[in-house]
Parts: sequence; structure tokens; C-alpha cells
Amino acid sequence: MTPAKRRGEFEVIAELFAPLSKGEPGAFALTDDAAALRPKPGHDIVLTTDAIVAGVHFLPGDPASTIAQKALRVNLSDLAAKGAKPRAYMLTAALPDTAGDVWLKAFAEGLKHDQKKFGLTLIGGDTVATPGPLTLNVVAIGEVAHGKMLRRAHAKAGDDIWVTGAIGDAALGLRVLRDEDLGLSERHSASLIARYRVPEPRVAAGQAILGIAHACLDVSDGLIADCGHMAEASKVAIELRAADIPLSPAAQAAIANGRANLADLLTAGDDYELAFAAAPAHRARLTALAAKLKIRFTRIGKAVKGKGVRVYGPDGAAMELDRTGFTHF
Amino acid sequence: MTPAKRRGEFEVIAELFAPLSKGEPGAFALTDDAAALRPKPGHDIVLTTDAIVAGVHFLPGDPASTIAQKALRVNLSDLAAKGAKPRAYMLTAALPDTAGDVWLKAFAEGLKHDQKKFGLTLIGGDTVATPGPLTLNVVAIGEVAHGKMLRRAHAKAGDDIWVTGAIGDAALGLRVLRDEDLGLSERHSASLIARYRVPEPRVAAGQAILGIAHACLDVSDGLIADCGHMAEASKVAIELRAADIPLSPAAQAAIANGRANLADLLTAGDDYELAFAAAPAHRARLTALAAKLKIRFTRIGKAVKGKGVRVYGPDGAAMELDRTGFTHF
Repeated sequence: MTPAKRRGEFEVIAELFAPLSKGEPGAFALTDDAAALRPKPGHDIVLTTDAIVAGVHFLPGDPASTIAQKALRVNLSDLAAKGAKPRAYMLTAALPDTAGDVWLKAFAEGLKHDQKKFGLTLIGGDTVATPGPLTLNVVAIGEVAHGKMLRRAHAKAGDDIWVTGAIGDAALGLRVLRDEDLGLSERHSASLIARYRVPEPRVAAGQAILGIAHACLDVSDGLIADCGHMAEASKVAIELRAADIPLSPAAQAAIANGRANLADLLTAGDDYELAFAAAPAHRARLTALAAKLKIRFTRIGKAVKGKGVRVYGPDGAAMELDRTGFTHF
Repeated sequence: MTPAKRRGEFEVIAELFAPLSKGEPGAFALTDDAAALRPKPGHDIVLTTDAIVAGVHFLPGDPASTIAQKALRVNLSDLAAKGAKPRAYMLTAALPDTAGDVWLKAFAEGLKHDQKKFGLTLIGGDTVATPGPLTLNVVAIGEVAHGKMLRRAHAKAGDDIWVTGAIGDAALGLRVLRDEDLGLSERHSASLIARYRVPEPRVAAGQAILGIAHACLDVSDGLIADCGHMAEASKVAIELRAADIPLSPAAQAAIANGRANLADLLTAGDDYELAFAAAPAHRARLTALAAKLKIRFTRIGKAVKGKGVRVYGPDGAAMELDRTGFTHF
């Protein structure tokens, strides 16, 4: 392809990115080599990083604005899982020639939208040219009360396992984008595509369950795989009830049409919901919290002594799963 | 090429990278989604990020260990320029199929070496597969006394401009690696290659000039271009004396052979020396500091009223430069 028109790095930073640093004095309007931050008194800085690559984590033809949002949101999902309040982020973009001025402007618009929605500010980054695919790396920076960060570890035998939202939509959205016929209405197809392109990080939920949940992580590798990570870090087993796992109306329709099955949805990645463990004594409190936040919290199983993850079908028998999740590598 | 043998992401993290997180409890041995950090009392966290891409910032055939070192050091150079003490880093690696187990092991060895040398710890990261070139993004995290971070801005008319080490070696090292004949001895060629592959971030110098220098940055885009950044941020002009700019014996030999000229060296990138502005009253103190640190500090010019950068040749006339520096974009 012909290289798209693009100005030099300094102009792009000045025009498109520097305005995104407003409100954080330590970003120095992106005119310096580094940013300086100090956590609020009594708080820790929480740092997390995830990269997304065209053709692996998003489709090269996705809108520039949703690519920007996804790059941010997969990281905000990690902050959410740790109970942290988002504050700032850094962005490194490895840009192919095809990402020109028009593309970059739409990309910056996506960032701007999400900065406002989630209350964070750009404090630095880097842009490099690449002959390879568009690759975006975000470091999200949040704050949490000192020593209180939610961990994958510390789920206890006897805890309920909860999950936010619904599972499996993003994987189905990718299938729709790849022109697979799932026999769905336009509305359902569009909702699944949106879930793939623009995940909804559960930032408010993560902060709300701080002090209630014993353990938490975000579901990015697949529900089974990520429950496996929690089980391993917590030295417990996790038992899930297949019938209780929340599915969207669109995912239910795909299953009813025989175009999807539950096992695939439980092992697909990219959900960006939170899975967390909490004592049964907190059921009423968590249900009330979910109602207040207008987010679905569903009890899907329990932590027990032992190791690994088991999923029980409606007949009470353990389901066979041929893969345990999506490995990015 | 045939994909090299490589294990899954989780095994690589556990075996090669998790040991690099030892000593920072908030890294949670890389078993969680995020790290938690708190600056030392009275300090700010300083964050900086730079990415390097195979074929752009290093050669694909460079040793894995020096690629790791360069990825870290270009970021440590930014911390150095801010007067910050290195503490931790995050690493995102976009790996092509050709980076297999043997390569990754050597890569991790390079990180380990530099962690020890510079006193910092790996606290997180991400690995993704890419069909493109190897791309490494590091976020370096340091600490500096609250509000004291050295800036590009705040050089004052009348200040001396100083530079550490020597200028132009890395650009010549790249030419040697590309099989250009510079007419140099093996020893000189090897020293230039080392300067290209493994820059020496001036971490001790940066901390030492904190409270003395008015402004500082690291020379990554070329001495002229970076002095231009300082001039612009500080709202002064910078005048450099060509004859005073420090060159290594190898670079002097290349010039003597007619295979390099000073103008090229002043506009090449990748030096990773510090350029800083300080009042003339501090000359003796800075000279003593340099001796103590065993680093060369050279006065190469001054800040004056006005804008832009001018370089004066030995005849007192301003030199013509056909480009002002290396733009990564």
C-alpha cells in the first residue's frame, strides 16, 4: 500500500496527543522525557500493561477509534480487577505506513472519549514506525489504598465465585466480523461486534468490591482459564455450574441456533468481565451493589479444597473441555 | 523461516521472567495482573517509555542479550536525564516466531545483567506474538525528590551547556555493522559497535547534577536536535562550539580518515549522553563531580537570549547543517 500522509512524530504529539495530557501537571504536556506522579496520601500506584496487535487482538479494518478504546480498555480491565481507580496511562504505538493523519485523528478521538468516561489522562508514550502490523501498548496507572490491591490469590474454600456481565460475547463478535453466519438478527450481531471491539471494563465494580472480595481477576484468557489462574494462585479448586453462567440474549440465540456451544464460550478470551471470590455472608450485599451499579453480578460456582477447575453440566456431571482457554502466545 | 521452538506465555514468564521480579514485593512475582508501588516518602514516581524495533533501532542479528540491554538502557537514559533513581520496569515484547527458547534465555540474561548493574527490578509486562519485527517496549520507573525532576525547560540565558561522554559513536557503530569501511582498527570498530548496541545511560551523572543543572535531557535524536528541544522548552537559544564537542578516539580516527564528518555526528541519534544547562558558577563543582564519577563532562556552549541552535566552527562562522537530527517517525 502507498504510505498514507503522515507528519513527523513531534507534530503528531503536539497536535493530537498533548491535549490528552491536560489535567495532570506531572505529564508536562508531553514536552519532556518523563512524567512525575505521586499517589494520593495513603495510596499505592497500581501499574499494568497489555499490548494489542492488529490481526491478533483486533482486526486491521476495525475503526481507529475502537482500536484506541480497546487498547485502553483491556488495561482498564486489569485495573478494575485490582480494585484500582484509573488515573493515567502511557501509550506506545508502533505504526505502519498506512496509519496516516486521518487515521491518527480518529484514533486520538477514541482515546479522548475513553479518558473522559473513565477519568484518566495520557502522561507519556512513544511512537515508532514499523514494517509490521499496528501494535499498541498501554500502561495503565491507577491508585488503591495502601496494601489493599485485590489479588488473584486469597480466594478461600467455601467462597462463592461471581462473575460480572456476560461471558462469550466477544468471541462470537469476532466470528460475526469474520462473516460466519450465526443466524442472528442485525441487532444481536451488532451487539456482539461491539463487545469484541469495545469491551466494557468493570471499573466501578472493581472498586466497589474492594474490601469484600477475597480474590479477583479479569476474564481475558477465557472464563475457565482465568478461574484456573485464580485457583492456582489461591491454592483452591473452583467448581462452576454451567447452567448459571450468564450469557447475553445474543449468545443464547447463537446457541439456540446450533451455531455456538457453551464450552466454546467458556474457553474463549476477550470477555473483560471480572471473576471474583467472596464469602457467602456477602451475597445480599453484593446483590445490592450490583443493583446500585446497574451491573449484573452472577454467582456461578464456589471455591473448594483441592486444585483445578471443574465445570458441572445441568445433569450434575463434569463437562469435558478440550481446551482450557486462549493462550495469547 | 521455520518457527523456533517456544513454549507458552505462562511458562516463559514463570521460568525466565518471574525470577527477575525478586526484591520488589509489589511485583507479586509476576503472578498477578498488576504491580503495586509506593514511592519512598517525599519522592515522586518518574515514568518514561521508549520502544525499539528490529531494523529501526537495532539490527535483527544483534545478540539477544544486547537487544535486551538496549531496550532497558534507552529508557534508563531518560530516567538519568530527569535525575531519577531507577527502581523498576515493565517490559512488553512483541515476538516473531523466530525468537525461540534459546533466544529468550539469552535475552533474559541481558535483562538480569542490567538489573543488577542499575539496581532495578522487573514488575510486569506482556508478551504477544507478531508477524512483524521484534518490538520491545519498556516503561522505566524511577524516583526523585518531590517536585525536583530535572526538566528540558528552565535553562537560562548565560548558562553553560554541558554534555557527558562523547558524541557520534553509535551512528558510526551502525555504519561499521553495515560493513562500511571507516578505515578503523579492530579495537576502534569494536568500541563503536558496543556504543551502538549497548549505550551507557548516565544514571549516576543525572542524579549527581540534581540541584545543580537548570535543565537536562538525553541525546537520543542527535545533539543538535536535542539541544533544539532544550532551547525551545526553555525559551532560549543555544550556541555550540564545534571544536569543543567531545569525540571518542575512534570517532576522531574516522574523521581523520575522511570517512566521517562532524556535522553528521552532531545530527545522528542514539548517543544516550546527557546534555544539561548549568550556571557558570558551578563549573568547578561540575568538573569535580565528573572526576569523582569518572565520567567526562564537557562544556560545549552556552544558552543565550533568542531561539534555535547554532553551531560555530573553529573559524567562528556558523556551520550549515542539512538536517537537524534524527526523527524516529
